[in-house]
Amino acid sequence: MKHNYLSNIPLKEAVEKFLSCLKDVGTSYKTETVETRRANGRTVAEAVYAKRCSPHYCACAMDGIALKAGLTAGASESSPVLIKKEDFTFVDTGDPLPDGADCVVMIEEVTENSDGSVMLYSASAPWSHVRQIGEDVSAGDMIAPSFTRVTPSLIGAFLAGGVFELTVTKKPVFAIIPTGDEIVDAQSEVKSGDIPEYNSAVFSAMLSEWGAESEVYPITPDDPALLEAAVKKACEVCDGVIVIAGSSAGRDDYTSSVLEKLGKVLVHGLAIRPGKPAVLGCIGKVPFIGVPGYPVSGIIVMENIVKTVVSLLTKIPVEDAEKISVTVSKRIPSSLKYHEFVRCRAAVVGNKTVAVPMGRAAGIVSDFAKASGIVEIEQNSEGVEGGERLEMTLLKSRGEIERCVCVIGSHDVLIDELSDILARGEKPFCVMSANTGSMGCITALRNKEAHLGGIHLLDAESGEYNKSYVKKYFPNGGVTLVKGIGRIQGFIVPKGNPKQLEAIEDLRRVSFVNRQRGAGTRILLDWLLGKHGISIDEIYGYTREEYTHTAVAAAVACGSADCGLGVYSAARTYDLDFVPLFNEQYDFLVSNEAFEHDGVKAFLAALKSEEFKRRLKKLGGYDFKNAGEIILEV
Amino acid sequence: MKHNYLSNIPLKEAVEKFLSCLKDVGTSYKTETVETRRANGRTVAEAVYAKRCSPHYCACAMDGIALKAGLTAGASESSPVLIKKEDFTFVDTGDPLPDGADCVVMIEEVTENSDGSVMLYSASAPWSHVRQIGEDVSAGDMIAPSFTRVTPSLIGAFLAGGVFELTVTKKPVFAIIPTGDEIVDAQSEVKSGDIPEYNSAVFSAMLSEWGAESEVYPITPDDPALLEAAVKKACEVCDGVIVIAGSSAGRDDYTSSVLEKLGKVLVHGLAIRPGKPAVLGCIGKVPFIGVPGYPVSGIIVMENIVKTVVSLLTKIPVEDAEKISVTVSKRIPSSLKYHEFVRCRAAVVGNKTVAVPMGRAAGIVSDFAKASGIVEIEQNSEGVEGGERLEMTLLKSRGEIERCVCVIGSHDVLIDELSDILARGEKPFCVMSANTGSMGCITALRNKEAHLGGIHLLDAESGEYNKSYVKKYFPNGGVTLVKGIGRIQGFIVPKGNPKQLEAIEDLRRVSFVNRQRGAGTRILLDWLLGKHGISIDEIYGYTREEYTHTAVAAAVACGSADCGLGVYSAARTYDLDFVPLFNEQYDFLVSNEAFEHDGVKAFLAALKSEEFKRRLKKLGGYDFKNAGEIILEV
Repeated sequence: MKHNYLSNIPLKEAVEKFLSCLKDVGTSYKTETVETRRANGRTVAEAVYAKRCSPHYCACAMDGIALKAGLTAGASESSPVLIKKEDFTFVDTGDPLPDGADCVVMIEEVTENSDGSVMLYSASAPWSHVRQIGEDVSAGDMIAPSFTRVTPSLIGAFLAGGVFELTVTKKPVFAIIPTGDEIVDAQSEVKSGDIPEYNSAVFSAMLSEWGAESEVYPITPDDPALLEAAVKKACEVCDGVIVIAGSSAGRDDYTSSVLEKLGKVLVHGLAIRPGKPAVLGCIGKVPFIGVPGYPVSGIIVMENIVKTVVSLLTKIPVEDAEKISVTVSKRIPSSLKYHEFVRCRAAVVGNKTVAVPMGRAAGIVSDFAKASGIVEIEQNSEGVEGGERLEMTLLKSRGEIERCVCVIGSHDVLIDELSDILARGEKPFCVMSANTGSMGCITALRNKEAHLGGIHLLDAESGEYNKSYVKKYFPNGGVTLVKGIGRIQGFIVPKGNPKQLEAIEDLRRVSFVNRQRGAGTRILLDWLLGKHGISIDEIYGYTREEYTHTAVAAAVACGSADCGLGVYSAARTYDLDFVPLFNEQYDFLVSNEAFEHDGVKAFLAALKSEEFKRRLKKLGGYDFKNAGEIILEV
Repeated sequence: MKHNYLSNIPLKEAVEKFLSCLKDVGTSYKTETVETRRANGRTVAEAVYAKRCSPHYCACAMDGIALKAGLTAGASESSPVLIKKEDFTFVDTGDPLPDGADCVVMIEEVTENSDGSVMLYSASAPWSHVRQIGEDVSAGDMIAPSFTRVTPSLIGAFLAGGVFELTVTKKPVFAIIPTGDEIVDAQSEVKSGDIPEYNSAVFSAMLSEWGAESEVYPITPDDPALLEAAVKKACEVCDGVIVIAGSSAGRDDYTSSVLEKLGKVLVHGLAIRPGKPAVLGCIGKVPFIGVPGYPVSGIIVMENIVKTVVSLLTKIPVEDAEKISVTVSKRIPSSLKYHEFVRCRAAVVGNKTVAVPMGRAAGIVSDFAKASGIVEIEQNSEGVEGGERLEMTLLKSRGEIERCVCVIGSHDVLIDELSDILARGEKPFCVMSANTGSMGCITALRNKEAHLGGIHLLDAESGEYNKSYVKKYFPNGGVTLVKGIGRIQGFIVPKGNPKQLEAIEDLRRVSFVNRQRGAGTRILLDWLLGKHGISIDEIYGYTREEYTHTAVAAAVACGSADCGLGVYSAARTYDLDFVPLFNEQYDFLVSNEAFEHDGVKAFLAALKSEEFKRRLKKLGGYDFKNAGEIILEV
């Protein structure tokens, strides 16, 4: 079934091989002329020399009088010198030095006589208080060497030096060719099995940030002849070609074979994860990159390979991305075979910047968009242990990470609403949340990975929520339980409740969708099942796990499950019916240290805000009495 | 003459006052709708919720077969289970899960029989190898809270979630009104006394980097009625008004009085240097900033005040600029009265990043463009001592500073040519040069402020160049003298040599322009004068100092001096005549530690290159035999 195999070339080696081949075939930048005043951010293609001096004349540097310095000889407090009316001129700063004059005396040092003459009480040296020609720039001076990036102040220096046009490196144009039979435009109606194509938009935006342009080609089906035609056309008009997907070694993967036919395959298969199935080569002088179709794999290949090619074509150096030192919250296992890029969320918890590794699925672009940064695990490493310090390449700004409230625990859409309230605040903060369930919150706080998190843990014996868990899991204290909201858990079912579900026993006869292990909702389900003597084996779909209430509702909405357990607001979002079963208490467990964090303060203040109540009312199904009050401090 | 006075309000206080007033009057952002795929870098004005799930169907996560998990019950290595042809479907990754199926078995685990049935050797759980609906994003999930900046990956998440349009904050438009009777368009022919206007281009570029737009108004003369009319018009159509110059308290400074008439003056005069004469206020809801006309003052006011106003109107947070820790090379005195912004050049010399404070003239924009960063001396501080560690706000990237070769010493245009050769190299480096004269080079190397520098110091006794100085000033060694070039020093005189200058005695009868103290050329002049028994008092213009050969030539070219002493290439640049007087040796003195620096290696290699010789030939007047060879190591 497979017609070729992927190699496993280390990233650095692949990039070097690729760039050195491109240089050998003569791939290089092109130039164009642009107006200096519109050239900000561009890169000059040659050294720029001043064409005029700035200032271009000898200028008075003070308000005062201009005269021949020799006339002031011998002047002092005790024997002032009189300067006749015709021997000086009043001048303002910036005025040209009048003919014959060679110095300026500040107006404060001049005493005027009634006949128009003046008295001076000190002698002046020639050229004092005169701004010399070329003080800023002299004609002929090199203002900027080749490949200097134009900045606002440099625009000023160029214009001061009489340089009104610049020869800059031309923005290279990359053809982006999305491929695949199942790929459809992201903005079209999508049917089951269609994969919406948005990589081209993501890659275009990346290219634009790097100083390149892009031309997105129509989606090409998995057909080598059509792909060949598209690539040929692109090579004629573009400076680089990016083919999305089909870059692996499967049945329908034609990228490398088309490249082999038209040009030269240099690398097929990189020792990185995600991003392994990349194809690098060239067609004549045109660089060619086959980028994997999974969005995160694609982004990693763009960032680590295409960016260096853009740099070759723009002469904008690839600067090392900003990195910060982080403490990894838990073990990150890694394969010896791959250099791994692991996205993390990071926040300042206590006195450390803690990075929590996120899922590694290559298809989850929303996760990537939320990540604070990336840690890299080198090839031939088995990974790092929790607690180790690592360098993390930033995807968010340092400031954003410092402003970030890290919320790990049970999911409720109210966390998103709170994050929006914080974002809209006078002094904005961001919320980074991870849905790991109520027990996940307890683990995160014990490990000092989070500031706070949502929990709704029912004590089966007392029927009380949360308190007993806090006491049990934090015997040495360190956390505070803050009242959140009351909410109704129930069956999320299709409109009209076609299977007529009413009670927990009814789950025996339907297809269910569950929440992940450790989720408070799953614990509630287990408790309800136990109470009614129902075995989990009797529930079809018990092992089918979703991580959020909305994902459960989505599964019901599309008909792939008959029922899920969740909150009212999720059912409402999908216009589904809701069978109330149980009132529960969803609270926030907060690390005591975190009360010092300005963002956490804002989060807790938002819990008490009118705006929060307004939003909960709109969502429905919540009881927000006393939200934000302290319930228990241990 | 003065009609009002400047206050001296601390920067932070002024900004707080300004912003709080703007919030009070209701200055805020506007919004507009843009296509998601074109929204990179924009800021969403409201929380963005997913409109569809991604994936929007249950998808097979593997190539293999899809079937009902129940059929695999009990399968094991020893008792495989046979699955009939009609009970499974071959699927590829990404295919929709076929109706009735609830799991996927990887193709590697399937053994096909000849009749089309398959054997399975292990049991599968329901929903294994199935990519659930909404695994990436579920409809209704908040993808991004308000005021999130759109990134490429976020564009992917939005499109995945079916969000094709975004409400973003509108780019505010700032009117930029240059003022002043003496101000002319930078691109026009400039006469003596004209000041070319380029601040508007600098500020436009800055605004654009911050996410704002600008409309540059025609230059308004120093006339309160005309300025009032221009400001009124701007207020009607723009979101902010910037008036350039006229913001001080002089005779022709109308900015604050016009603002007082049309709106409200909040601050007039800041306790910063440069940048003191700024005016802040508002006209209705429109923020108004009077920015000083000196370009560096203007840039400081834009960066520290206008940027925060742009942030209010765009909701893009002002992130703290990147800072690095530097060791200041020499004392930076400061007035207690002002918070000072001192531009510095920085390079990694030995194991420290050394920052050398540059001149503080507010009119020298080319200096600002060259600076590596800015150190701030707080108000009420008398400054910092040489050797102190400070934070420097970066104007160049960290990488650029690390790649930088720091060249301090005597000026010759060949340093610029070398810097261009380095910039164009395979592995580019930048050169940061300061023209402090030959003795300045020795001081800089003794203080470990520079990697190397040019010197041409004549030993009057031996008639030999440089060596005796190196021995004298580096008794403990640590430097190496590298052969540079031979060059001819001579009189730079107007075309045709109208004053018929031939020998050093002729200087008695002309107007001369000299070099600064410590410059090798001045030392040469002093030696020549002494040798001929001429007193410096006999030379008119001896005290008139320029810092470069080109600046000397410029003074001669414009007729403000009859003659200067300098090198042939400078005369040639200005199409002047040259009277050769003296052959001298211009060498490079290199710190021994610096030989480890890759950039210094490249610099010394460039000295020996053919390209360097080619460029020197083009400049003329140089002898480059043995350039780059070591002369003396101490």
